[in-house]
Amino acid sequence: MAFRVLFLPENISLKTDGSLDLLTLARQAGYLIDSQCDGQGTCGRCRVHLVSGALADERDNRIEFQTIPLKDILSCLAYPCSDVEVLVPPESRVGEVITSSTDYSPLLQQSPALLFTFQKIDIKLPRPTLQDSCSDADRITRELKKRYHGEIHFSGDFFSTLPNQLRQSDWHITLHALDCDNRLNIISSTDDDRSAYGWAVDIGTTTLAVALVDMEDGAVVDLASSANPQISRGADVISRMIACEKKGALPSLTKAVRDRIAGLQQALLAGNDIAADDVIAAAVSGNTTMLHLYHGVNPVYLRKEPYIPAFTSFPAIPARDRDMVCASGALLFTCPSVASYVGGDITAGAVAAGIDLADDVVLFIDLGTNGEIVIGNKEWALCASTSAGPCFEGGGITCGMRAERGAIYAADWDEANKKLIPHTLRDEKARGLCGSGLFESIAVLFQNGAIDRSGRLNKDFPGVKENAEKEWYYVLDTGDN
Amino acid sequence: MAFRVLFLPENISLKTDGSLDLLTLARQAGYLIDSQCDGQGTCGRCRVHLVSGALADERDNRIEFQTIPLKDILSCLAYPCSDVEVLVPPESRVGEVITSSTDYSPLLQQSPALLFTFQKIDIKLPRPTLQDSCSDADRITRELKKRYHGEIHFSGDFFSTLPNQLRQSDWHITLHALDCDNRLNIISSTDDDRSAYGWAVDIGTTTLAVALVDMEDGAVVDLASSANPQISRGADVISRMIACEKKGALPSLTKAVRDRIAGLQQALLAGNDIAADDVIAAAVSGNTTMLHLYHGVNPVYLRKEPYIPAFTSFPAIPARDRDMVCASGALLFTCPSVASYVGGDITAGAVAAGIDLADDVVLFIDLGTNGEIVIGNKEWALCASTSAGPCFEGGGITCGMRAERGAIYAADWDEANKKLIPHTLRDEKARGLCGSGLFESIAVLFQNGAIDRSGRLNKDFPGVKENAEKEWYYVLDTGDN
Repeated sequence: MAFRVLFLPENISLKTDGSLDLLTLARQAGYLIDSQCDGQGTCGRCRVHLVSGALADERDNRIEFQTIPLKDILSCLAYPCSDVEVLVPPESRVGEVITSSTDYSPLLQQSPALLFTFQKIDIKLPRPTLQDSCSDADRITRELKKRYHGEIHFSGDFFSTLPNQLRQSDWHITLHALDCDNRLNIISSTDDDRSAYGWAVDIGTTTLAVALVDMEDGAVVDLASSANPQISRGADVISRMIACEKKGALPSLTKAVRDRIAGLQQALLAGNDIAADDVIAAAVSGNTTMLHLYHGVNPVYLRKEPYIPAFTSFPAIPARDRDMVCASGALLFTCPSVASYVGGDITAGAVAAGIDLADDVVLFIDLGTNGEIVIGNKEWALCASTSAGPCFEGGGITCGMRAERGAIYAADWDEANKKLIPHTLRDEKARGLCGSGLFESIAVLFQNGAIDRSGRLNKDFPGVKENAEKEWYYVLDTGDN
Repeated sequence: MAFRVLFLPENISLKTDGSLDLLTLARQAGYLIDSQCDGQGTCGRCRVHLVSGALADERDNRIEFQTIPLKDILSCLAYPCSDVEVLVPPESRVGEVITSSTDYSPLLQQSPALLFTFQKIDIKLPRPTLQDSCSDADRITRELKKRYHGEIHFSGDFFSTLPNQLRQSDWHITLHALDCDNRLNIISSTDDDRSAYGWAVDIGTTTLAVALVDMEDGAVVDLASSANPQISRGADVISRMIACEKKGALPSLTKAVRDRIAGLQQALLAGNDIAADDVIAAAVSGNTTMLHLYHGVNPVYLRKEPYIPAFTSFPAIPARDRDMVCASGALLFTCPSVASYVGGDITAGAVAAGIDLADDVVLFIDLGTNGEIVIGNKEWALCASTSAGPCFEGGGITCGMRAERGAIYAADWDEANKKLIPHTLRDEKARGLCGSGLFESIAVLFQNGAIDRSGRLNKDFPGVKENAEKEWYYVLDTGDN
C-alpha cells in the first residue's frame, strides 16, 4: 500500500510503502533534515510537526495522529501509516552556514611547507624553421631548461590548444605551472595574460568551505560554504565511521561531499564570471576521517585499535578525478595528516598560523566538532586532539544552533545599562547561539562581572534570574526584535 | 519535406530533408561506407546501387532514377529527392580487417628503450601496533624503500581497497606497479595472486589493432582489430589533416578513434573473462598524425612548412582520460615520435625489430598507407618516410581490397601445372587482393618466370593473356570457387 508524504513548507512530495522512516525518506529525496545521531532517536535534531495523517513511532509502535497544538515528532523514528503532511521547522533544517575568513596569503607565500608553488612563466620562443624543426613541446622545454633545473611535465591536454596559440601569438605565450617535488607541472598556457585561479577547500565535519583563490597573489577572490551533507549520517567523525560499516554507505558519503563541493564551485565561478578552464589547482584540507571519506577510502580502522589511517600523505592527482570544476590538467593537492586524529586541517592551520616559521612559541587552537591544539615553533611542535563535542555547532546547548542566519555570533557590553548587546548573523532576529557567540557571550559576561572565575553566574548581577527548576540564567536576547 | 532513406541489405532507415548527401547521412547514422577522398567524389570507393527512388547528382544537378541494371551512384555526391532505397555492395563497406602478429615479447624484455617496466612486488608487512602506528601507505613505502631507490608514487584510487585487503590478508599482499623515469607508480594491489594486464594499441591510418597483454611475461592474450573509423574522413594522413581544418572535425575524429578502441577493449575483456580493474597499463603507437588526432591535438601544422608537430614525446597520463577500459589508476604511455612523418609506430617497430640492441646493421620496413624505412644498429639509425599510397589497402589496384574476408593474402606455386595457387583470408571465395597478396603474387610470378626482371608479364608464359585494350594480364583466381 502506498502513502503520500508531503514535507512543508517546501511542498516536497513523495511516495512510500510505510517501510521507511521520515528521515530516510527525506534523505532519499535529497531533502536535508538535520540529524546528529544518524537516526538513532537520541539527538532530537530531526524534530518535525505532524500536520495531518498518522505516523507509527518505532519505539513503542504507538500511532500518532495530528493534534492541536501540532505534535512534535522525531522524524527518524516515525513511519507513515496513512497519507501524511509534516512541517519541518527551521531549526530542524540544515541551512546555509555563514563563515568568515582572514587572508593569510602574505604569510603563506614565505612558507617552505607549501605543497606547491604557482609559476607564471612568460616565454618568447624562436620561430621554427626547416633547420630548427623540433616539436612545439620540445621548443618550450628547451626554453624552460634554461631557467628550471627540475623535471618538466606537461599535463595531458596541454597540447590541445597549444599549436594555434603559439602561432597566433607569434611564439610568445605565458605558461601556468605548478612546481612541486622538484617537478614543474605545466597545466595550461595563454596568450592574453588571463589570470589563473585555484580552489582551497576545507572539509569540516560540519561545514564545507570553498575559496576561489587568485594563484598569483594568493588572494581570496570569493568564498562559499555549506553544511557538510554527510551531517545527515552523523554529526561527528565517530558516527560517520560507524555509518561506513554499512555496505554501500561509503560511496554515498563520498559522492555527497564531492557533489556539494562541485556545486559550490559552480556557483563561485558563475558569480565571478570565471571559466572552469582558468582554475588550474586545488588544495583540500580536513580531518583524517573527512579526507578518507573524500578520497573514497574507508575510515573504519581509524577508530579501531591501533587506530591506523590508510594514508596521511596523499599523492597529487587530477582534480577532475574528484569531480572538481576546473581545467582538465588541474592538480589536486591534499594537506597531509599527521595521524588518525590530527588531520590535514591542523597541518594547514599550523602553517597558516606561522608555526613553521616562528622563532617564538606559537599556540594554535582549532575548536570544531573535534578540537586540536598545536604548540611549537620552527624547530618543534606538539599536538593533542580530542572530541570537542558538538557544542560549537549548537549541539547540547539549550539555545545552540549552527552559524546560520539569526545566530548570535558576537557580543558587546553596554556599560551605561549594564547589559550585553548581542549581534546576530545577517542582523536577523536572534534564533540562538552559534560557537563564536557562546565564546563571546561568556567572555563579555565574565569581563563585566556577570560570570565569576568559577564559571558560575553571579546571582546579584542585574539581569541574572532564577527559573522554576532553580537554575540561574541570563537572557541574551528575547528573539522578539 | 522529409524523405526516407533505406540502406540495404542492413535495412538501416533514416530521414532527411534532402540537404545532405548519402555518405554524410550514412556516417551520421554510424553506418560506415568507405571513402578515401573524404567525399570529394574522386576515389570511387563509396559506390552504391540505387534500388528505388530519385537522387540528385551534385556535379550536374542531374536526377538519377532507378534503372535496370542497378545504377552505380557515388554516395558522396547523391542527394535524395524522394524516398530512396540504396544497396551498399560489400566492396563499398568498411569490413573487418584481419591482422596477424608475431610475439616479440622475449626480445622486448631486454630493451632499455622500453617506456616502462612492470613490477609485481610481493610484500609482507609487520602488523601495526600502538607503538608502530604509521599509516598503511607509509608502512608500504617503508618496505619498498628497502628495495627501491627511486620516487614512489601511489595512484589516486589505490587506497580505496587497501585497508580491508591488508587486514584480510594478514598484511601480505602483492603490488602491481609500473616503473618509469626512476619513479615507481603503484597502480593496484591484490591478495589473491591475480594477473595484471595491459593494452598495446596500434592506431594505423587504416587499421586499429588492440592487444591484451599479460604484464608479467608480455605474452599477447588476445588480439582484436577494426578499421580506423576515421577512414570515412579520408584514407591517408594528408586528407585527415585537411579534414581538421573544418571547425568541429577534430573532436569528432578524436572521439571516433577513442570510442572504437574502447569497443575493441570491451570485447576483448568480455571474451577473455577479465575485469577492467585488472588492466593497469596501456601503450599506444601510431604515426605522428594518428597520435595527434588520438590525443585531441590539431595536426594541421604537420603539413605546413616547416612541418612542426605539437609533440613528439607525450607524458604518461591516466589511461581513463582517453576513455580506455581499465583500472582507475592505469597509466597510458605513448610511443614517442621522431618527427612529423616518423611516428611512434616506427620507434616501436624499430625496438621490436631489435635495432636498438643489434651489433649488425638491421633494416626495418613499414609499408602501410605511409611507408617508412629504418636502417641502423645499437649505435646509430637513419630513417626515411614517404607516402606509400593506398595500394596496400587496395587503393588504385583494379582488384585491390583491404585485408578483409576473401582477400588473396598469400600465394604458392604449383610446379606440375605451372600455375599460381592463391590463398584467401578465412578461406573464402576470392574477392580481391590485399597488400600481402600483391607482394606474394608478384614474388611467386617473378620466381617462376611469369614476370621478368623489368616487372613486365612474360607474354609467352602459360596463362598470360591479352585483353581488348591490348593489356597483358594473368588471372590469379576467377572468384568462382
